[in-house]
Amino acid sequence: MTELETRVKQQFDQLSELLDNNQTKQFRKKFLDMHFYEQGQFFMTLNQAQRKELYAIMAPDEIGDMFDTLQDDDPHISRILHEMDLKYASEVINSMYDDNAADMLEHLDKAEVDRYLSIMSTADANQLRGLLHYDTETAGGLMTTDYVVMSQYLTVGAALKALRKFARTAETIYYLYIVDDANDLVGIMSLRELFTHNEKATLNTVMVRNVVSVYVDDDQEAVAQVFRDYQFVSLPVVDHANKLVGIVTIDDVIEVIDDEAEEDYSKLAGVDVDESQTTPLSAASKRLPWLITLLFLGMITATLISHFENLLSQASILAVFISLITGTAGNAGTQSLAVAVRRLSLENNNPQHLIKLLLKELITGLVIGLITGLTIWLVVGLWKHNFVLGLVIGLAMMVAITVANLAGSLIPMLMAKIGFDPAVASGPFISTLSDLTSVLIYFNIASLFMGFFKGL
Amino acid sequence: MTELETRVKQQFDQLSELLDNNQTKQFRKKFLDMHFYEQGQFFMTLNQAQRKELYAIMAPDEIGDMFDTLQDDDPHISRILHEMDLKYASEVINSMYDDNAADMLEHLDKAEVDRYLSIMSTADANQLRGLLHYDTETAGGLMTTDYVVMSQYLTVGAALKALRKFARTAETIYYLYIVDDANDLVGIMSLRELFTHNEKATLNTVMVRNVVSVYVDDDQEAVAQVFRDYQFVSLPVVDHANKLVGIVTIDDVIEVIDDEAEEDYSKLAGVDVDESQTTPLSAASKRLPWLITLLFLGMITATLISHFENLLSQASILAVFISLITGTAGNAGTQSLAVAVRRLSLENNNPQHLIKLLLKELITGLVIGLITGLTIWLVVGLWKHNFVLGLVIGLAMMVAITVANLAGSLIPMLMAKIGFDPAVASGPFISTLSDLTSVLIYFNIASLFMGFFKGL
Repeated sequence: MTELETRVKQQFDQLSELLDNNQTKQFRKKFLDMHFYEQGQFFMTLNQAQRKELYAIMAPDEIGDMFDTLQDDDPHISRILHEMDLKYASEVINSMYDDNAADMLEHLDKAEVDRYLSIMSTADANQLRGLLHYDTETAGGLMTTDYVVMSQYLTVGAALKALRKFARTAETIYYLYIVDDANDLVGIMSLRELFTHNEKATLNTVMVRNVVSVYVDDDQEAVAQVFRDYQFVSLPVVDHANKLVGIVTIDDVIEVIDDEAEEDYSKLAGVDVDESQTTPLSAASKRLPWLITLLFLGMITATLISHFENLLSQASILAVFISLITGTAGNAGTQSLAVAVRRLSLENNNPQHLIKLLLKELITGLVIGLITGLTIWLVVGLWKHNFVLGLVIGLAMMVAITVANLAGSLIPMLMAKIGFDPAVASGPFISTLSDLTSVLIYFNIASLFMGFFKGL
Repeated sequence: MTELETRVKQQFDQLSELLDNNQTKQFRKKFLDMHFYEQGQFFMTLNQAQRKELYAIMAPDEIGDMFDTLQDDDPHISRILHEMDLKYASEVINSMYDDNAADMLEHLDKAEVDRYLSIMSTADANQLRGLLHYDTETAGGLMTTDYVVMSQYLTVGAALKALRKFARTAETIYYLYIVDDANDLVGIMSLRELFTHNEKATLNTVMVRNVVSVYVDDDQEAVAQVFRDYQFVSLPVVDHANKLVGIVTIDDVIEVIDDEAEEDYSKLAGVDVDESQTTPLSAASKRLPWLITLLFLGMITATLISHFENLLSQASILAVFISLITGTAGNAGTQSLAVAVRRLSLENNNPQHLIKLLLKELITGLVIGLITGLTIWLVVGLWKHNFVLGLVIGLAMMVAITVANLAGSLIPMLMAKIGFDPAVASGPFISTLSDLTSVLIYFNIASLFMGFFKGL
């Protein structure tokens, strides 16, 4: 445990004791002194009776601040909301930042959502309903509507004064979004820039007009890229008529970056690595579809080898090197695949780049194949005292590796071309496919040396 | 191209023209109106003559703002700094945020660094030298010393006034770090919280005393985790005597998150995927060490099969299924590996969790093995009209998959235990290793049915 974790653990123990002993006042003080995230972590350690105790002594908006930090897809959320009085639960949701509230509601039944929204003010309910409409993987799905918007005719001083009021409710007050009379987004200013200007200046004389914004239907990955490039901590979201509809803040972008990285990692391994709360049975049922699919691809390879059984029965030594050749080519193909998927995710689908990438992989494959082939020629030659056998294995290895390398980069490109995520071409898929090509290459090369093997 | 990219491209064309036509005033206005990131992107499109033109018409601090956005490991940086007058270059570096400046200097020769530091003020040079001392993958390597620190006895009003002065120089003014007379970090306040308090209150009556900080030698991955959990945008860094030495800001944390994800992805594939600027020859030389190492591991498998040549020559049908069994077990092992590496990176090395994880993988492996084994028993039985052969293949498949699954989770755990990064157990390593165990299992099971195969 880190020092931070130890300190937090101690606080949790003290809090539990205060709660169980009904020392309400001391509990409230200590609880509210903690960071919202720590409050949330503490909350998740409580049993139902303790949680109900908590609802009795904390106001809904205090619980709402804490709810902002809970995992929105936590399977217990629905049950937890049910423990509360309906009005209390609705107020908790209403006092959350609306992007977090919408993300949480996203995971509940429609009827349940309606129950909570029905007792909010129409304006609040409509705001949440609006957010629920957007696809979760777009800017609209990430954005909050708790932002600071001001008229371009305000002075810097008036803006500063108004910001103070927003400090209690907006998700961030460090960026000020400036609109004209038609509510079009025309400028932006950071609080920091505001600080450097004369209080009497009007916003439209000092604001940044070169506003970088994203569209409400932009993919979350594109949104994350803008944050990376420009090092923003928040970003305005507009509709296609340039009307400001929300802002995305950096905390949500970090989640996107983590999720996308986990997705790429999962796809490379051909498995959803987020299995934290699953049983072995459900884990197996998630992994089996890919495995069984690849099993049938592997059956084609077996059928191919079956055609060469005659050769094999005459030269059983050939069987010794099947797994070495398929294995090494598979490894080379996996490397090439990972590089290609990464490059495809960083670069636009510029055809010139793609051809350059393919060409590079071809040459890389040839170089790797040549060196590996020479190595194995030498090793097998020395081991079996037979440099012709070594030549067959080495040659097959070289060609198989070159082909696997090419397949590793070509296949994700084709996937991208036909509109598939290139990452669905997983490592297991490429190795299984390269088993097939490698076997084909191996036995065809061996067949050329048939006369030699017959004499063996 | 996205709309944003198109707009930026147009601006770049206009800027180039203004620069080439010596329309200095218009160029300056247009250039300074762009975001620093866009300025940096524009800068990277210029040729040497154009860059020199730029240095003539822009002040060093204006170029420094732009330099803050350049990739600190760009191989051209050293050459670019050399084009500038020494004093100009030194001022550019000095006007950058000091964490970015230190990251950039990290990639230059020591002699070069000394040249630039020698003509700065002693204080500035020492500050940069101090940052250069920290390991790049720790909090110290990420932090900046351009932060806002104030005495706990200041009033809120005085703090606000002081912040306005910092607005031009500090990397972020949205968090205020509060120290006592001994310069110990005792509190923290966001500008937003400052806004909600009475101007006459002193900071030590309203500040948050429950400060979350990291140690200067904490690993960058741990720092990123605190940012994720607490949703901070900056975080104080202290030495082991609780003296404030710097702050880490979110932009640097996003780089860490991206780098670590790329590292995990690379390790899973057994290749450094960041090959953007390499030639095929250097790419090959980076991929070959792993491949050749695994080739020799594969040779052990070949040697094993070699021991069963007698069996193989009597029952060449066995060779048909080698790649199917090794391939499928390898795929299952890769899945199990990816899940385990992910779990290990998320969880502390709690022995109870590890045993639970192993047990889960064992059962998952058994379930997957059972279903896959039954499938292949049926398929082979029907295909070859021989359900005894099917039984041998199915049984071997089941055991091989179970073992591969266990190896996929056990090996990264052992790696972590002996202090290795669990991710060095790559997918290719696990599949090559499982080739070995699968072959061993397959031929031993087949040997048990020797009598049956002799009659085939």
